[in-house]
Amino acid sequence: MKIVAVDTGGALLTENYEPVGLVATAAVLVEKPYRTAALSVVRYADPFNYDMSGRQAVRDEAFLAVELARGVKPDVVHLDSTIGGIEVRKLDEPTIDALTITDRGKEVWKDLAKDLQPLAKKFWEETGIEIIAIGKSSVPVRIAEIYSGLYTANWAIDYARKNGTVMVGLPRYMKVEIRPDKIYGESLDSREGGLFGEIEANTDGIGWELYPNPLVRRYMVLEVWKT
Amino acid sequence: MKIVAVDTGGALLTENYEPVGLVATAAVLVEKPYRTAALSVVRYADPFNYDMSGRQAVRDEAFLAVELARGVKPDVVHLDSTIGGIEVRKLDEPTIDALTITDRGKEVWKDLAKDLQPLAKKFWEETGIEIIAIGKSSVPVRIAEIYSGLYTANWAIDYARKNGTVMVGLPRYMKVEIRPDKIYGESLDSREGGLFGEIEANTDGIGWELYPNPLVRRYMVLEVWKT
Amino acid sequence: MKIVAVDTGGALLTENYEPVGLVATAAVLVEKPYRTAALSVVRYADPFNYDMSGRQAVRDEAFLAVELARGVKPDVVHLDSTIGGIEVRKLDEPTIDALTITDRGKEVWKDLAKDLQPLAKKFWEETGIEIIAIGKSSVPVRIAEIYSGLYTANWAIDYARKNGTVMVGLPRYMKVEIRPDKIYGESLDSREGGLFGEIEANTDGIGWELYPNPLVRRYMVLEVWKT
Repeated sequence: MKIVAVDTGGALLTENYEPVGLVATAAVLVEKPYRTAALSVVRYADPFNYDMSGRQAVRDEAFLAVELARGVKPDVVHLDSTIGGIEVRKLDEPTIDALTITDRGKEVWKDLAKDLQPLAKKFWEETGIEIIAIGKSSVPVRIAEIYSGLYTANWAIDYARKNGTVMVGLPRYMKVEIRPDKIYGESLDSREGGLFGEIEANTDGIGWELYPNPLVRRYMVLEVWKT
Repeated sequence: MKIVAVDTGGALLTENYEPVGLVATAAVLVEKPYRTAALSVVRYADPFNYDMSGRQAVRDEAFLAVELARGVKPDVVHLDSTIGGIEVRKLDEPTIDALTITDRGKEVWKDLAKDLQPLAKKFWEETGIEIIAIGKSSVPVRIAEIYSGLYTANWAIDYARKNGTVMVGLPRYMKVEIRPDKIYGESLDSREGGLFGEIEANTDGIGWELYPNPLVRRYMVLEVWKT
Repeated sequence: MKIVAVDTGGALLTENYEPVGLVATAAVLVEKPYRTAALSVVRYADPFNYDMSGRQAVRDEAFLAVELARGVKPDVVHLDSTIGGIEVRKLDEPTIDALTITDRGKEVWKDLAKDLQPLAKKFWEETGIEIIAIGKSSVPVRIAEIYSGLYTANWAIDYARKNGTVMVGLPRYMKVEIRPDKIYGESLDSREGGLFGEIEANTDGIGWELYPNPLVRRYMVLEVWKT
């Protein structure tokens, strides 16, 4: 099975470990044995000017996933929205009302569906590929989350080169290591069966430290500085 | 403390990683230091013809546990039903109504209790051994779950010998390794403190691969084929 | 960031692994990189005479934390109460009523606040240091929990010296090792990123064994005896 998945993660942090905004949306192509990405693409956000409501993120994710999927032709596309694996092209009002989510969640999805339902319907008509809102249950979505952490580390390196130093928060229970010419990362949850990722990066002249975010258990902080 | 516990797990999967039916009910005898089974027995189900409502599983589990317990005389028997560690022989209607479970759960238990309450009462009168519905809190129940995964791997080997190839899903966050003359397995949740199991098996002429189920995070797939 | 945190944990167990009462309240000073304590203090409870409602524990914790904080002047004090990171000095009735906790929790906090709100207000007026009820989200609170486990092991050693043998239950998913002249402990949850602790202790002439509590998954039992 070939799956394209997408997720957004990684946050610029203040000195007090408070999030300023999210950094990276990553779309990945995942194939058997489903432990890492065969291919990944990123879209960086501007964390200083970020809509923390998350609605824009879901839209951006869907468009980035479709862009990658057009090229690689997967069997299915997984979005990071946990509404039961429903096909996004079928998300009309009665279907959303029948979901077992909160009333607030239904309002959000009725709004989101205005853009996403036509996108998914058009993509399905052209390619036969379904886009499903499977969320937390999907391993490829978790791999996309790990890649959003890798790209966040990459963003932090660029930022530190220009500004001297920076602190970012990684997605949940994952770590990264900045190695010569690449950034490696892996899940810290052993129950996930060994999920990991790697991207190429210019890592010359960079120092770094990784440690637990004291205010948010199970999340790690990455500090990066110019050496 | 000597504990007999029982659980059902492992599923035959389609090519799309969808469950067809469950494979193995395992009963285990667990003794201090409570990390593995001193003894185990299995009853295989027919996954092609499986009642996925789970009601039959609970009945089969109780009868298999009692069968093992008659031989090994434990201090207590643990069932995989999370209703607060209540003694099954006391499960009359008023007691079930007082449980803090859903109304649907109460209906299921009123039905189940018709068979299980007399079984537990008779077993207690004959042996003084209680059968308790302790469920997720019990380490021996988790060890039984790991053994149901080991026996599912064994079932898969037999099936692959006859049919060439097969895919099964293991119980939650556990892995198996098919070794010469045995199958080894362990929990992937480090918080459980090192739970594992092993059964003898004819593993000649068998190839295998283990990887995350892409559609169900924290569950592993085992593929087995004839070589 | 310098953080003082406090937690209570570790339980004396009966031969049937049932808790008799809690053993140790530990306050810790945690500094970057937030993986262990730079300093720790303990107050031992009398597990044979313990108020299991937990209300006394919260009071004792707050007073021990303030005592440590007076000396080390942290940036903030973390209590093990999960009510959203609110400042304890602001806990008046309307604020408690507005918390998203159960009605029962509100009654408990209205009672607790009688002692804790004046304590926190006075401490803040004198030092400018906030005491916040951040609970499960705080890494320093988890480190305090690990230290309560270390001190529980220390208490068990003393008890075994006098009484021959003892069984204690450690806080959730952690292990300890009794080494020459010290007790080492660490979290078993790999997602936490490597939290650990160590205290000095007289460990001569002591035997020990650590294994999963069969009745409470993810909790370990420590047996200690005189050799």
